Amino acid sequence: METTAEKIAQTAKDASFGLRTLSAELRNKALQKVAEKIRLNEAKIIEENKKDIAAAEASGMSAAMLDRLTLNSKRIEEMAKGVEEIAAFADPLGKVLERRSLANGIDLSRVSVPLGAIFFIYESRPNVTIDGAALCFKAGNAVILRGGKESVYSSFFLANIFSETLVEFGVSKNAVQYVNNPDRNLLGCLLKQSNYLDLVIPRGGEGLIRAVSEQSTIPVIKHFNGICHVYVDKSADLNNAAEILHNAKVQRPSVCNAAETVLFHKALPKESVELVLKPLKDAGVEFHYDKCGVEYLDLQISVCFVNDVQEACEHIEKHGSHHTEAIVAEDAEVLDFFANNVDSSSVMLNASTRFADGGQYGLGAEVGISTDKLHARGPMGVESLCSYKWILRGNGQVRK
Amino acid sequence: METTAEKIAQTAKDASFGLRTLSAELRNKALQKVAEKIRLNEAKIIEENKKDIAAAEASGMSAAMLDRLTLNSKRIEEMAKGVEEIAAFADPLGKVLERRSLANGIDLSRVSVPLGAIFFIYESRPNVTIDGAALCFKAGNAVILRGGKESVYSSFFLANIFSETLVEFGVSKNAVQYVNNPDRNLLGCLLKQSNYLDLVIPRGGEGLIRAVSEQSTIPVIKHFNGICHVYVDKSADLNNAAEILHNAKVQRPSVCNAAETVLFHKALPKESVELVLKPLKDAGVEFHYDKCGVEYLDLQISVCFVNDVQEACEHIEKHGSHHTEAIVAEDAEVLDFFANNVDSSSVMLNASTRFADGGQYGLGAEVGISTDKLHARGPMGVESLCSYKWILRGNGQVRK
Repeated sequence: METTAEKIAQTAKDASFGLRTLSAELRNKALQKVAEKIRLNEAKIIEENKKDIAAAEASGMSAAMLDRLTLNSKRIEEMAKGVEEIAAFADPLGKVLERRSLANGIDLSRVSVPLGAIFFIYESRPNVTIDGAALCFKAGNAVILRGGKESVYSSFFLANIFSETLVEFGVSKNAVQYVNNPDRNLLGCLLKQSNYLDLVIPRGGEGLIRAVSEQSTIPVIKHFNGICHVYVDKSADLNNAAEILHNAKVQRPSVCNAAETVLFHKALPKESVELVLKPLKDAGVEFHYDKCGVEYLDLQISVCFVNDVQEACEHIEKHGSHHTEAIVAEDAEVLDFFANNVDSSSVMLNASTRFADGGQYGLGAEVGISTDKLHARGPMGVESLCSYKWILRGNGQVRK
Repeated sequence: METTAEKIAQTAKDASFGLRTLSAELRNKALQKVAEKIRLNEAKIIEENKKDIAAAEASGMSAAMLDRLTLNSKRIEEMAKGVEEIAAFADPLGKVLERRSLANGIDLSRVSVPLGAIFFIYESRPNVTIDGAALCFKAGNAVILRGGKESVYSSFFLANIFSETLVEFGVSKNAVQYVNNPDRNLLGCLLKQSNYLDLVIPRGGEGLIRAVSEQSTIPVIKHFNGICHVYVDKSADLNNAAEILHNAKVQRPSVCNAAETVLFHKALPKESVELVLKPLKDAGVEFHYDKCGVEYLDLQISVCFVNDVQEACEHIEKHGSHHTEAIVAEDAEVLDFFANNVDSSSVMLNASTRFADGGQYGLGAEVGISTDKLHARGPMGVESLCSYKWILRGNGQVRK
């Protein structure tokens, strides 16, 4: 397994050399061709997907999981469109991030470059195969894909469409590799290939992400969970509070930027609190007054009361997950205090937590949301799949 | 040990909350006061340092190590000056890194914030105590300092000067903590406190850095070594080549940005190669024609020959350490090829590798040089001790 893992990682790294200098034009043309090939192969994709579905049904997979596994015409078209969108993004490479002339005449610049080779790990959602490959390739990186074993036929077939298309553009087929051996031992060995791999991105549930983080000697970008708070200050516009809280909890309860706790200022009258909670009640949300710090991902919410904005911030620090928090308040000082003291990747002042999303921020398709503080924090666009290097142009300068 | 480690880490994290909103003015005033206190305490610092020196001499420490351990008036003044320089830097916090209005009227900004709590590990150089504490504090971070055990009296005393000064400015004394228990078990336990600590910076030799990286569950910013190359193309100006190579190898052979290998284009006549190597020969540099990929940190250098710039890049990829590489060439295409294909943190076109330094790049005092590709790459200024957060200012927006 160690030899297999090393070979996969080493060939990915080797493939990344050729990508370093591939022009944006070629990268985008290749992506457009991938989209075309996905559409052309619709029937075959559905055929491979049926093999996965048959096996999953036989093993008694839940309806929700089966749904995520299933590919149909609509979803295949969405995949193709997604790749075209990524092709249309601005190029994240070769950007001059800073530049200056040094006193000795050297021209110093800091320029964005690809990271190198990325290991992308995800659950049994075959569309993530294409998404992950397209995002990594857009940023000039080689990628090793490893989806959940239930999606192996669909994902392997999709990854092959991608890599075969790249070959037509003179790119090594190893620029996109799919690990179709579900052995966890192989996964473990791959996570130790820090000599060749630059980054691991696990996308999925907390269990997967924790397991990957614990085993990996390669840097991992991740978020474990989203325990997002909405704090309703005594200065809040109550209609805003009701709308924002409803949106944050109910619009899509199963995602990481949904609210899991609402904090009320104790000075708010009982009727105000009831007014703010009414839309949740009407939507069938269950209230928990006795616990907090729970990620329900469901129509449930913790309700707590705090003395002031400072206590709200302390509560969030203690029970939150540094993902996204919102405040509803009209008092400018209170808003500032919250913005400055909450240590989360996104802070929403009079806006819903649901906005924490790469697309909403104008970053294009999202690699994920990071609750880490290094490299990338919050919604990650393709820029987060880049590094930079310093280039010094001189004419013979030496250091005195 | 686990309890002790957790307590140290937790109190550091707690102290970091207060630092988040400390104004730049106060931070800089506190740093100026630290400089003043260092000067005032010169006699006591030397007294503590003598205890370390006596123990080190008794244990038979080498003259070079003893020299690095020793503090005298001049070095103490340098420490104080160093802190004043850091106080004078531009504030790295609260910078608006990007900002835009979203279509829904939300004002989106990305703003630099402190990382939180940093664990700074170094060898027996007491001056690094002050340097590390000042850099971390400038960027609004709490820091845990752990120097080599041979410098425990000096470093502990210096760290106390720092933290006692902070207390005068209303900052928690735990914002700067020194681990004066040399137990490696405690170090190991501290490296597992990822719940509280945001970053580990090991500064020292490769052995220390590898040991820290292997044990840590907290992100580590590091470089292991510097195997820097100078490639002399057939289009090179030979005088430039001779001067740059001499500077890169001889000016300070013991540092990580010194050249360790020179690569010559095979088309260069023997006399040209001899001309370029002459200043090294005159400086007593020993040539190794039979090996490469070695970090000599001494007046020795590997000499290799390559067919062209492409082979030079391949050689560097295989034997280098992704730190800093230089090319001497007049051919613009060759220079571009080198700049685009060499995957090192700094690439020098007709300039010495010795320029790879935060001070030279205008970053102010240097935290270190990173050969990692995530977060910070190359010379790291105080910006590399910061993260960012996204702030969205709305007036009731919800996601449709």
